Amino acid sequence: MTLLSTRRIHTGRVINLDVDHVRFPDGSEGDLEIIRHSGASAVVPFLSDPRGDDPQLLLIRQFRHAADGEIYEIPAGRLDAGEDPAECARRELQEETGCTAESLEFLTTIYTTPGFTDEKIHLYMATGLTRGESAREADEFLTLETVTLSRALQLIKEGEIRDGKTIAGILFAAGFRT
Amino acid sequence: MTLLSTRRIHTGRVINLDVDHVRFPDGSEGDLEIIRHSGASAVVPFLSDPRGDDPQLLLIRQFRHAADGEIYEIPAGRLDAGEDPAECARRELQEETGCTAESLEFLTTIYTTPGFTDEKIHLYMATGLTRGESAREADEFLTLETVTLSRALQLIKEGEIRDGKTIAGILFAAGFRT
Repeated sequence: MTLLSTRRIHTGRVINLDVDHVRFPDGSEGDLEIIRHSGASAVVPFLSDPRGDDPQLLLIRQFRHAADGEIYEIPAGRLDAGEDPAECARRELQEETGCTAESLEFLTTIYTTPGFTDEKIHLYMATGLTRGESAREADEFLTLETVTLSRALQLIKEGEIRDGKTIAGILFAAGFRT
Repeated sequence: MTLLSTRRIHTGRVINLDVDHVRFPDGSEGDLEIIRHSGASAVVPFLSDPRGDDPQLLLIRQFRHAADGEIYEIPAGRLDAGEDPAECARRELQEETGCTAESLEFLTTIYTTPGFTDEKIHLYMATGLTRGESAREADEFLTLETVTLSRALQLIKEGEIRDGKTIAGILFAAGFRT
């Protein structure tokens, strides 16, 4: 696929919208809408040894306008300009939960929904947490909830945890933590 | 959070962009960008008994402009107006792989990235597949790949499978198929 031209439709606070004119592999041409996003980091925060028996982890419940209600999420946020994804994960963990992590382990990077955005989220697992003060951004309204891993898996199975990065992060950590 | 007003910035082929003016829980007001999406279905297609020993499944490799290359995905696509999500899953499976499924099992519904879009993807697991002719849309360029579940898990662990819905779908099916 070849990019022939691009048109900026909207420059926003979180996202930009472009319409790219491309040539497809079969030689035809067309327009593709693409949301440009700077990327984000997210972190599965373990309060006890993740390799132990049914460890505890920290979830946040956050009001999301797009979900029209409160949903479960892991701590996450956008990369600042030039910011290292691991630093971003540590910063967001601290801002949203007040916790600092002794150790941060990279899990994987996901495309959240590659049909229309280039957004990537870098997923980490945090261990050795120390609780402190949180420093939330003005438009973040959230509460913290401590759950066991088995309870988190149950919440995923029952459809109570519905956020894509949260499901991917917890199942990844649960499946591959040994 | 209360919606005070909304402004349509862009009406597109796949997505619409609104800027919503809202009142936050603390009484302050602000603008939130939101990509409105009609929702989608995706399906983890098992070629052999998913409860058997290391079952086979079908993945697609698809060029994604937003990912700037080919990525692994499970079959997926947007809901037509008024379409039942399960019907959409069957239709997309048939269009993208040529397969019809004897049985379709609902797994869960995910918000792909609720920070800026209301897009939901309904995830299913398909079994009892019969191969036939595919009928791809004009802008879909993809190839099929048969992998064992253990290989798919390895591809997730190694970061070769990076699509959020695909990771969530496969790990969900793998974790909760018994």
